[in-house]
Amino acid sequence: MANEVILLDFWPSMFGMRTRIALREKGIEFEYRDEDLWNKSPLLLETNPVHKKIPVLIHNGKPVCESTIQVQYIDEVWSDKNPILPSDPYQRAQARFWVDFIDKKMYDAQRKVWGTKGEEQETGKKEFIELLKTLESELGENTYFGGDDFGYVDIGLIGFYSWFHAYEKYGNLNIESECPKLIAWAKTCMQRESVAKSLPDSEKVIEFVTEIRKKFMLE
Amino acid sequence: MANEVILLDFWPSMFGMRTRIALREKGIEFEYRDEDLWNKSPLLLETNPVHKKIPVLIHNGKPVCESTIQVQYIDEVWSDKNPILPSDPYQRAQARFWVDFIDKKMYDAQRKVWGTKGEEQETGKKEFIELLKTLESELGENTYFGGDDFGYVDIGLIGFYSWFHAYEKYGNLNIESECPKLIAWAKTCMQRESVAKSLPDSEKVIEFVTEIRKKFMLE
Repeated sequence: MANEVILLDFWPSMFGMRTRIALREKGIEFEYRDEDLWNKSPLLLETNPVHKKIPVLIHNGKPVCESTIQVQYIDEVWSDKNPILPSDPYQRAQARFWVDFIDKKMYDAQRKVWGTKGEEQETGKKEFIELLKTLESELGENTYFGGDDFGYVDIGLIGFYSWFHAYEKYGNLNIESECPKLIAWAKTCMQRESVAKSLPDSEKVIEFVTEIRKKFMLE
Repeated sequence: MANEVILLDFWPSMFGMRTRIALREKGIEFEYRDEDLWNKSPLLLETNPVHKKIPVLIHNGKPVCESTIQVQYIDEVWSDKNPILPSDPYQRAQARFWVDFIDKKMYDAQRKVWGTKGEEQETGKKEFIELLKTLESELGENTYFGGDDFGYVDIGLIGFYSWFHAYEKYGNLNIESECPKLIAWAKTCMQRESVAKSLPDSEKVIEFVTEIRKKFMLE
């Protein structure tokens, strides 16, 4: 059976970026459809009726929701090339732990950095830098989170990197001075075609964040 | 190598229950250690330094954190008996989706049912019943969420059942009248030794909830 793969996504989404990267790591051709989140397509509402959120991966007509589940699905279906999760169960559990950590902590913290002000923003900034430092310490001296091979945790985290300039601009932060090794890791990831093709330009993200801030009357 | 398995847990935890059930489904002997969450053991703090939360599964000295990751780990390490996740990647993705749904929605909603009052409680009750109805509709006419076989979604949800009487008492609810098929499913699950042995008595949970409500001055 031919593989028909459609990705319902929204370009600044760090979650969508995970799925784009995973598809490209596996060399899977896919049709990318950018959603208007303020006017969601009938296909999005039909394929993710529970959360009504992007990204949705539609493989031969069957939808898979939630980015981490999509990445694992892609790794399981296209298991012959560029493994994403480690093969050892303990290493797999560790990789899942760190992606779960990112999901539970990073989104809310980064949201506070660029989308709030005053005390809430200050708390968010501290929290965010602390999270990055925890991740940097987990990375250690490795090239990638899994060691020598680009994998699940790298895919889980790298999308946020396209937002780093926006965090720096609106949070008045210098992430590289706080977490130099994490920035070096991100730059190494960016040398991969799968990543470079999947992350939007930082300046475009800044423009997007500026717009959102205007909507929420932070500007 | 002999398998030394230790579970750091807290008896009313619906998350800990998942791991207990998974271990028992696989017939794995384990040492259960009930934690005092108001005075956590050095071993808990050492094995889960990031979240400092139960359950922690320690397999031959190596800790695995987060119940869903533990259940998947158990399924991968002891793969020869009673598979927990389906073997088909699409079915696996669906099972992961529903457990993720439970994790994202159920805990907060049930907390509002027994741990708040007034309008917050009323909203929580509606939300909670709606969640249960969504899950009941996913169950459909099947015996278990995965069809004929007890599996990942059943393990993800059944622990909450031991709290149902507490929700009914403090939320003034009748869950069976709202979701009769879900209750029938829960009763079927309870016939399994792995489940019956892992869930605490409902009356004991009610006592526990009553204590917590006193602490939070809801009584």
